[in-house]
Amino acid sequence: MAAAKRLLKKRTGKIGIPPGSLVHVGEKRPGTPRLSAICYTPETLEEIEITALSRLPGIAARNGVVWLNLDGLHQVDLVEEIGRVCGLHPLVLEDILNSDHRPKLEIHDDFLFLVIKELSWDEVRQEAVTEQLSFIISPGRVLSFQERPGDFFDGVRNTLRGSKGRIRRMSADYLAYALLDATIDQYFVVLEKLGDHIEALEEALLQRPNRNQLQQLHHLKRELILLRRAVWPLREVISGLQREETVMAAATQPFLRDLYDHSVQVLDTVETFRDIVTGMLDLYLSSVSNRLNEIMKVLTVMSSIFIPLTFLVGVYGMNFDHMPELHWRWGYFALWGVMLVSVGGMGLFFRRKQWL
Amino acid sequence: MAAAKRLLKKRTGKIGIPPGSLVHVGEKRPGTPRLSAICYTPETLEEIEITALSRLPGIAARNGVVWLNLDGLHQVDLVEEIGRVCGLHPLVLEDILNSDHRPKLEIHDDFLFLVIKELSWDEVRQEAVTEQLSFIISPGRVLSFQERPGDFFDGVRNTLRGSKGRIRRMSADYLAYALLDATIDQYFVVLEKLGDHIEALEEALLQRPNRNQLQQLHHLKRELILLRRAVWPLREVISGLQREETVMAAATQPFLRDLYDHSVQVLDTVETFRDIVTGMLDLYLSSVSNRLNEIMKVLTVMSSIFIPLTFLVGVYGMNFDHMPELHWRWGYFALWGVMLVSVGGMGLFFRRKQWL
Amino acid sequence: MAAAKRLLKKRTGKIGIPPGSLVHVGEKRPGTPRLSAICYTPETLEEIEITALSRLPGIAARNGVVWLNLDGLHQVDLVEEIGRVCGLHPLVLEDILNSDHRPKLEIHDDFLFLVIKELSWDEVRQEAVTEQLSFIISPGRVLSFQERPGDFFDGVRNTLRGSKGRIRRMSADYLAYALLDATIDQYFVVLEKLGDHIEALEEALLQRPNRNQLQQLHHLKRELILLRRAVWPLREVISGLQREETVMAAATQPFLRDLYDHSVQVLDTVETFRDIVTGMLDLYLSSVSNRLNEIMKVLTVMSSIFIPLTFLVGVYGMNFDHMPELHWRWGYFALWGVMLVSVGGMGLFFRRKQWL
Amino acid sequence: MAAAKRLLKKRTGKIGIPPGSLVHVGEKRPGTPRLSAICYTPETLEEIEITALSRLPGIAARNGVVWLNLDGLHQVDLVEEIGRVCGLHPLVLEDILNSDHRPKLEIHDDFLFLVIKELSWDEVRQEAVTEQLSFIISPGRVLSFQERPGDFFDGVRNTLRGSKGRIRRMSADYLAYALLDATIDQYFVVLEKLGDHIEALEEALLQRPNRNQLQQLHHLKRELILLRRAVWPLREVISGLQREETVMAAATQPFLRDLYDHSVQVLDTVETFRDIVTGMLDLYLSSVSNRLNEIMKVLTVMSSIFIPLTFLVGVYGMNFDHMPELHWRWGYFALWGVMLVSVGGMGLFFRRKQWL
Amino acid sequence: MAAAKRLLKKRTGKIGIPPGSLVHVGEKRPGTPRLSAICYTPETLEEIEITALSRLPGIAARNGVVWLNLDGLHQVDLVEEIGRVCGLHPLVLEDILNSDHRPKLEIHDDFLFLVIKELSWDEVRQEAVTEQLSFIISPGRVLSFQERPGDFFDGVRNTLRGSKGRIRRMSADYLAYALLDATIDQYFVVLEKLGDHIEALEEALLQRPNRNQLQQLHHLKRELILLRRAVWPLREVISGLQREETVMAAATQPFLRDLYDHSVQVLDTVETFRDIVTGMLDLYLSSVSNRLNEIMKVLTVMSSIFIPLTFLVGVYGMNFDHMPELHWRWGYFALWGVMLVSVGGMGLFFRRKQWL
Repeated sequence: MAAAKRLLKKRTGKIGIPPGSLVHVGEKRPGTPRLSAICYTPETLEEIEITALSRLPGIAARNGVVWLNLDGLHQVDLVEEIGRVCGLHPLVLEDILNSDHRPKLEIHDDFLFLVIKELSWDEVRQEAVTEQLSFIISPGRVLSFQERPGDFFDGVRNTLRGSKGRIRRMSADYLAYALLDATIDQYFVVLEKLGDHIEALEEALLQRPNRNQLQQLHHLKRELILLRRAVWPLREVISGLQREETVMAAATQPFLRDLYDHSVQVLDTVETFRDIVTGMLDLYLSSVSNRLNEIMKVLTVMSSIFIPLTFLVGVYGMNFDHMPELHWRWGYFALWGVMLVSVGGMGLFFRRKQWL
Repeated sequence: MAAAKRLLKKRTGKIGIPPGSLVHVGEKRPGTPRLSAICYTPETLEEIEITALSRLPGIAARNGVVWLNLDGLHQVDLVEEIGRVCGLHPLVLEDILNSDHRPKLEIHDDFLFLVIKELSWDEVRQEAVTEQLSFIISPGRVLSFQERPGDFFDGVRNTLRGSKGRIRRMSADYLAYALLDATIDQYFVVLEKLGDHIEALEEALLQRPNRNQLQQLHHLKRELILLRRAVWPLREVISGLQREETVMAAATQPFLRDLYDHSVQVLDTVETFRDIVTGMLDLYLSSVSNRLNEIMKVLTVMSSIFIPLTFLVGVYGMNFDHMPELHWRWGYFALWGVMLVSVGGMGLFFRRKQWL
Repeated sequence: MAAAKRLLKKRTGKIGIPPGSLVHVGEKRPGTPRLSAICYTPETLEEIEITALSRLPGIAARNGVVWLNLDGLHQVDLVEEIGRVCGLHPLVLEDILNSDHRPKLEIHDDFLFLVIKELSWDEVRQEAVTEQLSFIISPGRVLSFQERPGDFFDGVRNTLRGSKGRIRRMSADYLAYALLDATIDQYFVVLEKLGDHIEALEEALLQRPNRNQLQQLHHLKRELILLRRAVWPLREVISGLQREETVMAAATQPFLRDLYDHSVQVLDTVETFRDIVTGMLDLYLSSVSNRLNEIMKVLTVMSSIFIPLTFLVGVYGMNFDHMPELHWRWGYFALWGVMLVSVGGMGLFFRRKQWL
Repeated sequence: MAAAKRLLKKRTGKIGIPPGSLVHVGEKRPGTPRLSAICYTPETLEEIEITALSRLPGIAARNGVVWLNLDGLHQVDLVEEIGRVCGLHPLVLEDILNSDHRPKLEIHDDFLFLVIKELSWDEVRQEAVTEQLSFIISPGRVLSFQERPGDFFDGVRNTLRGSKGRIRRMSADYLAYALLDATIDQYFVVLEKLGDHIEALEEALLQRPNRNQLQQLHHLKRELILLRRAVWPLREVISGLQREETVMAAATQPFLRDLYDHSVQVLDTVETFRDIVTGMLDLYLSSVSNRLNEIMKVLTVMSSIFIPLTFLVGVYGMNFDHMPELHWRWGYFALWGVMLVSVGGMGLFFRRKQWL
Repeated sequence: MAAAKRLLKKRTGKIGIPPGSLVHVGEKRPGTPRLSAICYTPETLEEIEITALSRLPGIAARNGVVWLNLDGLHQVDLVEEIGRVCGLHPLVLEDILNSDHRPKLEIHDDFLFLVIKELSWDEVRQEAVTEQLSFIISPGRVLSFQERPGDFFDGVRNTLRGSKGRIRRMSADYLAYALLDATIDQYFVVLEKLGDHIEALEEALLQRPNRNQLQQLHHLKRELILLRRAVWPLREVISGLQREETVMAAATQPFLRDLYDHSVQVLDTVETFRDIVTGMLDLYLSSVSNRLNEIMKVLTVMSSIFIPLTFLVGVYGMNFDHMPELHWRWGYFALWGVMLVSVGGMGLFFRRKQWL
């Protein structure tokens, strides 16, 4: 059930509805979405919790940089109202609400629309959780839409509150960069967790393979397939930001290059992990084959030694009237001799074959 | 038999016939093809069922947007007549009739010719059904050719009937976009069904692999190979539409970009499914190997314990005249002791090897 | 032996000979090559069997379109003479004679030189037969060189003979197109045969895998590797023809686009077949593993039930003087009871493991 | 533990810190970093050990070429001071300190920033050790940052000390080339070690596969995955240097081309090694399967010969009152005859199957 | 040992030496290198064996075309002297001496420097031998450097000696082409040998797989990996020659195109061989699995038939005082009846399972 949701979010509700209609695709969450604004200039900073939508136009019209953040997408009319105030195309709103969207950058006339994935680590289920994060970036304005409240952006907020950080002194596009940077930093946390898993599993595999590890391997492989899907378009998105020159100021360019390096490294690490996990599957299969060989050797050695002996003692358990050996004085002991020699011969044979 | 049709539709009938000759390649269906037209302007809308071909030129010459839809391609002369009235090249008609054609976009001087696949889910056979859909798009005119009647376009028809939808207000190229969008929406329905299958099978595999699952896996893999073949050229087709500027109006461009995003996501999902199904095959094979190991352990443990014991009791079943042990007072019970010790030793040995 | 020829045609005879020397690389065939010409204008058509080479210059100088066709390349001087009359570069003649050449298009100043493969299906050996087909296309002249006589071009000849076909009305490049189209149509025939094979084999595999199927699978895979090699460069060749504008008239362009579509579909189908055959090999291997499991279950169940019983009856076959059980009134029947309980226990154990 | 560090260096300490903050990512090492300078002109050379940072500006301002080398990155303020004196962007310093960075070339207005990996061979753990090496190249100045002291650059230092080497006569960019060349030369040493390992393992595999080899194979594969990751971006970096024309003088170009050839060969060798190691895994698996067959043949032959015989002798160990054979004069000997014939028959059967 | 040399030629001796130093990397060979010259114009030809280096400048200054060929690279000062006379860059000489270099084309101001591999077939070790071949091509001059004397170029020499060959009439670049053509012709010889091996092995595999074939397969696979590495850059090299227009005359262009076709076909064949060998490994593994199944069937059938029978006869070998069956008149014969029925039942069971 839960796994099903991860492969493809149900969008069946959207089928047959005209394009541009606003429908939320994704998990419904309890609680009210939270809309907050931070308005700042190099000298001033104001944090506003927006509870009445009527305040929105006033805030959107302020001087300086305005950062509007929405936590929770399940209240469609709220998103619609924000879109109306900020003049967003219905298709943009549709994409913001469709939480199964592929990361992308759209360059509109007066704003940039950017969709990326935010990753976090679910300690309980031991897997990566992917959520959608959308940005609208225009001169002096940054809008961010998160699927659910998180602490990703707290670092950026703290830097903003201090009056000395670089963000306060720079334009809105640098704020957008800082938010993206915080998001991609989080990727490395998830990658480290996955890396730890991979290494622990590898250690275990080299010692003693068991069926449980196979399921863990499969789980890891699936995680990496889904992770790759989430981060693959990232490089292209950041590289598109680098080429954009209207909204993204020249002063932000070196930082975007740094972001680009990070996104390449994320991809690179995911690919390396995939290679390693594939190698571990081969290791697992080979180990299982090895163990089968070991088991069969024991069976073969036991059978090859005792089956002929059992035959021999069977011979002298027969009840024929005329069996001369039975009446020999040392017949019984001679037979033991023969059997010991036979065991010794088998032992030598198996040692030569290196089965013992 | 049925499967055979899916790999390659028989076109043997066409071999040796000069190019441009009209032959229907595909399944012959019963019933008469159904030709209908919807003519509309922002203010008016008329739906016409065309039963007499003689009406065709009149309808084609109307003002406003004319959407001509043909359900069923097996009546070659009907397609030929439509081609004659609308001035289509014989090679275009040939491609419309060849229902095994690869999706493509052809830009002609005065119209666009577009072939894509429509997907639906056959609940009985639990597999995707691919059918061909061709469009001729010219200013003010959209012609659509379906292999068999379906309800794909009913949503678009309903929006058209209502006077408020965006379609009525826009030009013919937007109608074409809406039809394409409805078609690609249907892809997601099929992908969801496949995703459900994959996840159910995965769940089952992790619990207990059996031969039936192997056949299901193979079936899924084959489905995905054929699906990929149907959707792979899609991206290129939509991207070609985006670059076209004569027929496709600028106002339709943002919608085409949306369509492009969808087509990329379809491809992306098919590739992810393929990766996951490949991983499941590995999981299956590893599980089978694991189970063989388990079976062999049971055999080996049973044999290694009882074969030596059988030998031992065989020894004292021999009929030699002189076997001192047979006459000992406690010989029988001593043997039981020896045998119990041997079983215990084996038990320890197998436990140390973790086979028990 | 026969297979050897297919991987690489022996060209050892050519090593050490200066470039441009004419040597036939390929199978020597019996019989005389057959050289024939068809000369036509929209109004007239003449078919000439050329037995004396002296007639060649006269025919080559005729008005209208001249199509010269040579069946059989094993008579080197004949090819040389044709080359001399038509002014072909020695390297072109060398390539025509080397029947192991890769498909290619060479654009010379006054003619196009085109090498492709013609495929046919050998019903006896159940495999595709690849032969070389070379074309020289210049304004008003088409030269075609076939390795051996075939009926590929009969359709084109028949259309030519009728005065109404499009070929008669168009220029020589359209004739070349028609010949290429006839050749590629033949590819679909071979692909259909292969598709039938694949599907029959798949059906058989799903029912009961055996060693014979493995050889068939290997045979199919090899066929597809060689087929792919023959058709892979095709797309590039046709696409080169499309870009050429001196010899290929604008009127032929839509037909070339159609041809290009066909060549893409051929490639696409070969790739799909390869994917499916690879999937079948996995299926085969998994089935074999499954059957091994099944076999081992039978062995393990039989052994695990009867080996302990055999031990038990062996115990009471011993000849110790003092074995109290032997003298019990119901000892024999009690033992049967013990044994039946043991069999029942084993049965339950194996049923719980789902081995029975 | 140790392996964990290699997949991904822990950068958790950096998460949530504003971009451009200087944090060392990598292994903390004991001891003080060592900063030294070599200042030279074609005629003079001075080597300076810099213990007081106050001397730095004076040295940086000298005439001729100045090469500043820092061994050890764990003292962040030292790197910061160097950055301040030489006017480096904070993001550049951040990258220098992040020892898990991907190789890259950044072209700044007045200097080049280059990150590559240096490889060395750990004889104890028999694996490649990757460390980061950063260069700042500007006209007349080369700064190099090493993770830990090494003797990689001693060859270059020696050439510098002699007054005749090409380095003394050329500009700073040639010094940078010489350092890069020394680094890449070291790659070949590591590749040779790996090559020796591969060949020794291959030799062993062809003789007798065992579980230990499997672990070595897995180890090798993992080494190659990580190595590939370190050297893959190298080609791009060197090729970027070749295209740069401000800092890199024309006279250095032929040497850069040589360097490029070397980097391509490193990549090429790593890929070849990967192919070979993959082939060895297949060989290992096949060998294990072969040995299983061999083991099973022994078991089957032994069982098939002795189990029927044991049955036979069991028959004549029965105690029925009426068993005529028991009383025949030659019954016992006749049975031996029957058993020998049966053994002979089995032997022939197995020989025909080539199991003996 | 020998194999080690093939993966990577030891260049350890070169590490730490300044770039441009001349060190021979490769196998040391006995004997003196042989330097010979052929000077020709369309009318005259002179062959000179150069034993005294002092003659070199005189020969290099002659009119017409001068072809200088050096067999053997192990005498570094000889190469150095040739470089001095002909004005070659030290890095070029370094590459000529490094016999482990990747094929490449370097375009210098007044000459082309070309490195390719020459292949020959070692009949004793049944493997391809790769050696380095370097060319310096300038107007009127061709220098060729071979690792050891060979008869590759004898065909070219013979053509030169005859006054009628095309080479005499054309410029030095055609001579270079002729030498390259002779080298690539040799590739086909090696490919044919490999093809013969592959086909013989395939034939054997389809009949009866054994361990020896596995080693041969591995050997073939490794050969193809190394071969591919040697020929992969070839296409790029030839294509670079085609684009070069200063040294390579227009008249040589059609011949270079022919050479390019050959190099593509070499690559193509190597890739096809790799595909086929990979398929053979699958075939081998499947065959081994099949045989295991066959072996296990024999074991299972034998055990399942005789183990229960042995139990039965054991029952009546017991010595209980009260075993009524033992005293029945027809007990013994009845038991035989039961046993025959049981064997028959088993036989039917196994036949239904198709194990017999």
